[in-house]
Amino acid sequence: MPGPLITLTTDFGSGSTYVAQLKGVLLSRLPTARIVDVSHDLAAHDIGTAELHLRGTAFAFPLGTTHLVVVDPGVGTTRRPIAVTARGMTFVGPDNGVLGVALAQGQARCVHIDKPDLFRYPVSTTFHGRDIFAPVAAELAAGLTLDDVGTELGDPIPSTLPTPRVDGDRIVGESLGADRFGNLLTNLNAAVVGAELGPYTTQVAGDAVARSETYGAAAQGALMVLEGSDGYLEVAVREGSAAERLGADRGVIVECRRDGSR
Amino acid sequence: MPGPLITLTTDFGSGSTYVAQLKGVLLSRLPTARIVDVSHDLAAHDIGTAELHLRGTAFAFPLGTTHLVVVDPGVGTTRRPIAVTARGMTFVGPDNGVLGVALAQGQARCVHIDKPDLFRYPVSTTFHGRDIFAPVAAELAAGLTLDDVGTELGDPIPSTLPTPRVDGDRIVGESLGADRFGNLLTNLNAAVVGAELGPYTTQVAGDAVARSETYGAAAQGALMVLEGSDGYLEVAVREGSAAERLGADRGVIVECRRDGSR
Amino acid sequence: MPGPLITLTTDFGSGSTYVAQLKGVLLSRLPTARIVDVSHDLAAHDIGTAELHLRGTAFAFPLGTTHLVVVDPGVGTTRRPIAVTARGMTFVGPDNGVLGVALAQGQARCVHIDKPDLFRYPVSTTFHGRDIFAPVAAELAAGLTLDDVGTELGDPIPSTLPTPRVDGDRIVGESLGADRFGNLLTNLNAAVVGAELGPYTTQVAGDAVARSETYGAAAQGALMVLEGSDGYLEVAVREGSAAERLGADRGVIVECRRDGSR
Repeated sequence: MPGPLITLTTDFGSGSTYVAQLKGVLLSRLPTARIVDVSHDLAAHDIGTAELHLRGTAFAFPLGTTHLVVVDPGVGTTRRPIAVTARGMTFVGPDNGVLGVALAQGQARCVHIDKPDLFRYPVSTTFHGRDIFAPVAAELAAGLTLDDVGTELGDPIPSTLPTPRVDGDRIVGESLGADRFGNLLTNLNAAVVGAELGPYTTQVAGDAVARSETYGAAAQGALMVLEGSDGYLEVAVREGSAAERLGADRGVIVECRRDGSR
Repeated sequence: MPGPLITLTTDFGSGSTYVAQLKGVLLSRLPTARIVDVSHDLAAHDIGTAELHLRGTAFAFPLGTTHLVVVDPGVGTTRRPIAVTARGMTFVGPDNGVLGVALAQGQARCVHIDKPDLFRYPVSTTFHGRDIFAPVAAELAAGLTLDDVGTELGDPIPSTLPTPRVDGDRIVGESLGADRFGNLLTNLNAAVVGAELGPYTTQVAGDAVARSETYGAAAQGALMVLEGSDGYLEVAVREGSAAERLGADRGVIVECRRDGSR
Repeated sequence: MPGPLITLTTDFGSGSTYVAQLKGVLLSRLPTARIVDVSHDLAAHDIGTAELHLRGTAFAFPLGTTHLVVVDPGVGTTRRPIAVTARGMTFVGPDNGVLGVALAQGQARCVHIDKPDLFRYPVSTTFHGRDIFAPVAAELAAGLTLDDVGTELGDPIPSTLPTPRVDGDRIVGESLGADRFGNLLTNLNAAVVGAELGPYTTQVAGDAVARSETYGAAAQGALMVLEGSDGYLEVAVREGSAAERLGADRGVIVECRRDGSR
């Protein structure tokens, strides 16, 4: 039987010694672990982008996967380490919003990790990823339950990402960042918008922009709105960069209006 | 027994959510898969560089490895997904030339992947890597044959890379790109050139340049032509960058002349 | 039982064909190998940074791990390939200082790799990583001993990193590089400095700088000296970059003075 899967999402920098130390600790604690790098190149301390990565990737992995997310500007302060279970996955990280997408799932459970006997010693004040999060993630991947590693937590910090505003016939969202092709990722869940509004049209930064089924279906160079591969609306330009065209990657307003409304 | 090997070559960007989703799908479909990243940082839509990567790496892996290559500007259009077997390896990718090196091998077989029951649903129009190529690659790695996943294809699109011109006593090739050391990789297979011409001299961009056995054997700062580790001629500068020296990475003409010819 | 662990530290470039070839050879020779990338993005030929990476990561891995380090400006010349065992780990690389941290451990043993029957043929003059180091690392990971792969070597080249100067009541070290957060890593082992001096104060580039337990404990924007996660003193700025502040990453003088001295 293949070993437990653990994914890693950090701002440590690809190829940094921090990532390798994390892996060394995971493999020391759980020699059968199979580690998958999601990203180590998130902008330093950028919790929102880490959330976006988790939203886009976590549920593509097999049930039972442990997702370790360490974007942790508060390391060494009193922010709590937490573990969450949701939709058959386990999540480990700091209590700063970074696990917001897990917490937002129905049936999510969260504990404050407070069993110091599970940590790696000495616990560095600057590197809880290695000394707290990784050992606990390894133990959870190896079979410990949330209750084995912590105490129920009722008030974890939720997602830091902006949420869409529902306003009668309109839902107003915004872009949260761009992928490497310059496509803008939004906070508008296509299924939710469709259920809420029925047929609708879209505006990007105030201008009407047609929706498209595929990147290739729009005219060369034309802006389009389409459903991205993670189920959220995206703004794209065929064979071009929407981020460049619009001069921004975050905060671009995307508005959905019910057909026939004004 | 260790699980099946699957290598990945894409233009999705290291650390992008797309790569992680691909891995999640591969591991969901084939939990014992062992995944090796070749590169995810190819220039977007750069089929030629993907071919060059495949040429340089595919046959260094153990027999039975599955190579998944997704550089796919035509995603969502009618370009066909294909699978190829050659020299004991299996290849999966779009029919746009990216698998040219596999197709050029003797005994290569190619099928058009047309068994939708193998796909992941819903099939996104923008991400066939995740929904078509990855599931099929996992099935092939798990033991399905070409005939299980598609229908014989007689006219796959061949390599997009320029081929050398043979002209009496001369073979005229060109550089296809540079590695990170600034060495220029050419389309001149050293064994083929040697067999064709016997002893020969080389010119780079019109100037005579001596051949060298090793990087270290040439004078500091001197241009040299040598056989690269993949068996193709390279243009290099000892402890320097040939790409910088010549002001180009692609399209630099490299000419081989039979000794005694003029 | 999970397969043997092999870590990789090179200057080949992430996503380069060289890294993939190395992995292909390791997996061909030892199909059960589990490969962990430490870094492939070290500056080309930068032996010192490779040493720093090894210092920061090697001993976080499980006992029995094989560490393969290929930063090899002398490839193709007479520099020797070596293998070292130290603290339960095995190290393979060129004899140019890159394995200095392993050689500096008590009980370290070193051999000159000189059993050509273990190599991969033909041995490229430009890529010993693939043809000499990787096959031998695989064989060592698979169970061969140092004596099976080489001959005792009494004079391997030691670390190329500068060592601190002990001068009565002072120990004078320097920064060796910066991590991606701009923290400066020094050659001052905190435990050694503490044992040598007892209580002490620190100066950075001639100015007194307070020591701090954590990044978060210092004032916003203030320089601090703290013990890094690898046990060495670091210079940091809270939520800022010490490298930027000091305008340098290497060679910044960090001086420790025994309390009460002058």
